[in-house]
Amino acid sequence: MTFPRRTLLLTVPDIRQLIGTVGIGPLTKLLADQIRGDFLRWSEFKLSPRYADYLPDGVIELMPTSDGAYFCFKYVNGHPQNLRLGLSTVMGFGCLSDVHTGWPLLLCEMTLLTAVRTAATSTVAAQALANPGAKRMALVGNGSQSEFQAVAFHEVLGIERINLFDIDPSATRRLMSNLAGRSGLELTPQPSAEAAVEDADIVTTSTAKRGRFSVLSASMVRPGMHVNAIGGDAPGKTEISPEVLAGSKVFVEYEPQTRMEGDIQQMPPEFPVTELWEVLTGAKPGRTSKSEITLFDSVGFSIEDHSTLHLVYELAKTHGVGTAIDLVPEMSDPRDLFGMLV
Amino acid sequence: MTFPRRTLLLTVPDIRQLIGTVGIGPLTKLLADQIRGDFLRWSEFKLSPRYADYLPDGVIELMPTSDGAYFCFKYVNGHPQNLRLGLSTVMGFGCLSDVHTGWPLLLCEMTLLTAVRTAATSTVAAQALANPGAKRMALVGNGSQSEFQAVAFHEVLGIERINLFDIDPSATRRLMSNLAGRSGLELTPQPSAEAAVEDADIVTTSTAKRGRFSVLSASMVRPGMHVNAIGGDAPGKTEISPEVLAGSKVFVEYEPQTRMEGDIQQMPPEFPVTELWEVLTGAKPGRTSKSEITLFDSVGFSIEDHSTLHLVYELAKTHGVGTAIDLVPEMSDPRDLFGMLV
Repeated sequence: MTFPRRTLLLTVPDIRQLIGTVGIGPLTKLLADQIRGDFLRWSEFKLSPRYADYLPDGVIELMPTSDGAYFCFKYVNGHPQNLRLGLSTVMGFGCLSDVHTGWPLLLCEMTLLTAVRTAATSTVAAQALANPGAKRMALVGNGSQSEFQAVAFHEVLGIERINLFDIDPSATRRLMSNLAGRSGLELTPQPSAEAAVEDADIVTTSTAKRGRFSVLSASMVRPGMHVNAIGGDAPGKTEISPEVLAGSKVFVEYEPQTRMEGDIQQMPPEFPVTELWEVLTGAKPGRTSKSEITLFDSVGFSIEDHSTLHLVYELAKTHGVGTAIDLVPEMSDPRDLFGMLV
Repeated sequence: MTFPRRTLLLTVPDIRQLIGTVGIGPLTKLLADQIRGDFLRWSEFKLSPRYADYLPDGVIELMPTSDGAYFCFKYVNGHPQNLRLGLSTVMGFGCLSDVHTGWPLLLCEMTLLTAVRTAATSTVAAQALANPGAKRMALVGNGSQSEFQAVAFHEVLGIERINLFDIDPSATRRLMSNLAGRSGLELTPQPSAEAAVEDADIVTTSTAKRGRFSVLSASMVRPGMHVNAIGGDAPGKTEISPEVLAGSKVFVEYEPQTRMEGDIQQMPPEFPVTELWEVLTGAKPGRTSKSEITLFDSVGFSIEDHSTLHLVYELAKTHGVGTAIDLVPEMSDPRDLFGMLV
C-alpha cells in the first residue's frame, strides 16, 4: 500500500480557500451525497458514545468513529460564555487517519465545516422525509448556523422562499446581508415565529438559548410539515414542545445519543423514533402519508464528521490546498527513535 | 483573562529543535519534576479510561484528562506490522486546550515526547521506590525506548553503569552508538538477560514482543532490586513472570488501567497494588525494607501526557519554538460564522 508520509494540515484560511474554490453550495451538495452514502453503509462504522468532559465553564468532547479505511475524531467544545470574550461558543477541529497504520493523514479545522455538515445532514433528512415539491421554508433562529441551512436547502432541495425570524432582529439582518445577491432565493423577515412558519413546507429551528424552552408549539405546525430541529442538541437544551414531538413521526441520527441530547430527551424512553439510515436503506418507512408531520431531531453524529473529513481530504488534495507537516516522525530505522535526536 | 488567539503547532522538527536547545537530559529532569508535581495533586485531575478502537491491524487510542486549567488528549496508535512498512509501530500527537474557553492552545507531536515522558515517569517511580544510592542498572530490551531510559536514569538518578541485553545484538549496538560519548555513563553489553541483571540495583525491562512471555523470571531477581517494567503495556502483552510479580511489592500508575494493560493482568483481581501517587504524597508506604523487591508496572497514563504537553507548551513559548496556526476562527462577531465566507 502507499500513503503520504506527511500529515495534511487544513487551517481556517485553508478551508475558506477550499470553500471559495469549490463554492459553498456545491460543497454542501457533495457533502450531502457523501453523508447519504455513508449512512447507507451504517453498519460498517464503529459507533460509540462521544467522550465528554463537563467543566465548570462548558464542555469539551471527543467524537471518534472508524470504518474499514479511516479512523477519525472531532474535538469540539461548548462554552456558552465565550461570546462575552469575543469567541465562538463552539469550536472544533478533526483528524482523519489510516486504520491500517494509524498514520494521521489530516488535521483540519472543523468550526466552519461542522456548520456545513450539519446543514448537509439536514438536507439528507429533508429529502427523505419532506413532502416532494417543498418550496417554502421557515428559519426560526437566525444564528451562526442559519445561513448554512438556507444555502443547503436552496442548493440541495430547491427551496425558493425562506421566512426568517429571530428574537434578535440584528441576527436576521446579518443573515439577509450575508446571503444578499443569491439568485433564486427569496428571504423574508417575519415579526414572529408564528408568522414565519405559517405557510412553510419545512421548518428549521436553530435556536441557541440554553435550557428547555419551545419555539415551536402545537398550534404552529400544520399537517404535512417537515420539521428540521437542530437547536436542541445537548442535555438540558431543547427547543421543540413535547406536544409537537408527540404529534410528529420523529427521526434521529443515533438513538442512544439523541435520547440524551436531542429534543426527545423530554419524552419517555419508549417514545418511538426511527434512525434516519434505516429510512435511507429502505429498512423502515419514513413519511407514510402526505399529511403526516415528520420531525428530524438532529444533534450531530460522528459519522457525519467522518464523511466531512474524508470528502475534504480528497478535495484538498485535488485542489492543492493546505500544508504538509511532520506531525509524526519518519525514520530510516523505525526502532531508532533516539537516533532522531543524535 | 488573556490567552493567545492562535494555536501553537509543534511538529517533529520543532520538538527536535526544542530538545536540542534544552538538552534531552535537562528536559527529562524538568519533566520528571512536572510529573511528580502533578502526581502530588492527583485528585485535581479528571481520570477516565482511554478510548480504544481495536482495528484489524492494530489499535488507535485517545487518552484525555483535565485539571482546573488545561484539558488535554493524546492520540496514539499501536500497529505491530508497521515495521514492515518502515513505520513506527507507535505514533502519537497531542492537544492542550484552555478549560475556560475550550480554545486549543497547542497541537504537538508526541511520538518522541512519549518516549521522554515514559522515561521521566520511570525515574519518578525509581526515586521513590529504589534503594538509595543505586548506581547499577540493567536494560533488558534495547528497542526504541531504551536510550531514553538510559539517559533518564543517568541524569535524574545518577546511574553510572548500565548492563545491556537484547535478543537482537544490533539493537544493543545501536543504543551504544547513540549514547557514545556520554561521560559518566558506562554501557556494557551482556550475553544474556541473566548476565545483565546479575549485579543490578535497578532492572528496566522494555521488550517489544507481543504475547505473554517473560524476560524476568524468579531466579533472576535479588533482594532489594527495583524493577521498572515498561514493556508489558497492553492486553495480552506481558514480560514479567507471575512469580516475580508475586514476590514483589507492585506499584502502578492508575489501578483500573494497569489491571487491564500491565503485567499484573496475569494476576488475580485481588492481587495487591499501590498507586504511585499515594507513595509520593505519603498516604501509603512505598518500599518498607532494604531487601524488599519493588516493581513499577508502568503502562503510561494520561496525566503524564498532560504534564508533558503543559511543560512543552511553556518551554516552546520561552524558546520561541513552533508555528502559530489558525486552527479555530477568530471573528469580529462570533455569531457571524458565515461572514467568514462572504
